[in-house]
Amino acid sequence: MNTYINNIHFLLDKAVQNVVQLLYKENLTLATAESCTGGLLSGAITEVSGSSRVFGLGVCAYANEIKERVLNVNPETLRDYGAVSSQCAAEMSLGVRKISGADIGVSITGIAGPSGGSPQKPVGTVFFACSFKEKLNILHLEICAKKSRLDIRLESVRQALILITDTIS
Amino acid sequence: MNTYINNIHFLLDKAVQNVVQLLYKENLTLATAESCTGGLLSGAITEVSGSSRVFGLGVCAYANEIKERVLNVNPETLRDYGAVSSQCAAEMSLGVRKISGADIGVSITGIAGPSGGSPQKPVGTVFFACSFKEKLNILHLEICAKKSRLDIRLESVRQALILITDTIS
Repeated sequence: MNTYINNIHFLLDKAVQNVVQLLYKENLTLATAESCTGGLLSGAITEVSGSSRVFGLGVCAYANEIKERVLNVNPETLRDYGAVSSQCAAEMSLGVRKISGADIGVSITGIAGPSGGSPQKPVGTVFFACSFKEKLNILHLEICAKKSRLDIRLESVRQALILITDTIS
Repeated sequence: MNTYINNIHFLLDKAVQNVVQLLYKENLTLATAESCTGGLLSGAITEVSGSSRVFGLGVCAYANEIKERVLNVNPETLRDYGAVSSQCAAEMSLGVRKISGADIGVSITGIAGPSGGSPQKPVGTVFFACSFKEKLNILHLEICAKKSRLDIRLESVRQALILITDTIS
């Protein structure tokens, strides 16, 4: 947890501040849908005082059933591609954007480990999606499996922040 | 201050592990509804590998409109008592429990600062609620306003973990 807190501080210093400032400047609102990061992305964004101007809803949809029922992910998507897939990430980002009414929906779904990996989807496999206007940007990363669960989660938060910036810039 | 932060980290780490173990043991599931902590509680819980067995949904309802629309908080509650109130905390915990189908719903709503305080509700005012079976436990804290935004948020996470343990024990 020490590492967790120190890294949270680091994330705040840079990427989070930049994203919140960009959203202010562009007058855009954001909603988050998280699975493997469990709320760390929304936790980082809301560490910025005044972030309520640009952020209203974060959903941590940890269970598949919640992804379906709360975020409107298609059961067939989960059956055919699994929760850790570009298809699921896309539907999560579109789902949370619709529910929240935000301009931008960003999602993270992956395998933070240490268990849960497979040859096809090893630990560190993470899919991201960011929807904005007609754009739907997908990112697929294989974060080094030697990293800890916390490292994978924090790196995922950092990558999501970059994806948001790339999508709206 | 460093000693304080290190202690909080230590306590938070132990407290999260203990809560997840207790939920395993009692075969109970938990859902979280967060405002001022912005997802840090769900982020802490999901740092425990295997927490998906006991945790399915976390909602960060940062905006009042989201508290109403996603968590079914009564608009009159927000109008009459404000979002930072025992009444709102109670409805958030009941709302997220209902949506998720979890055994336990826990909520946090408060003023993390540095702005947003008032003489009636200074920075550091935080309300918590935990609902389980017929029980609805409410906790109201005034966390020292000299603490930083992050300190107030982390102390709130720690207090929510204690409240969960107290409610189900």
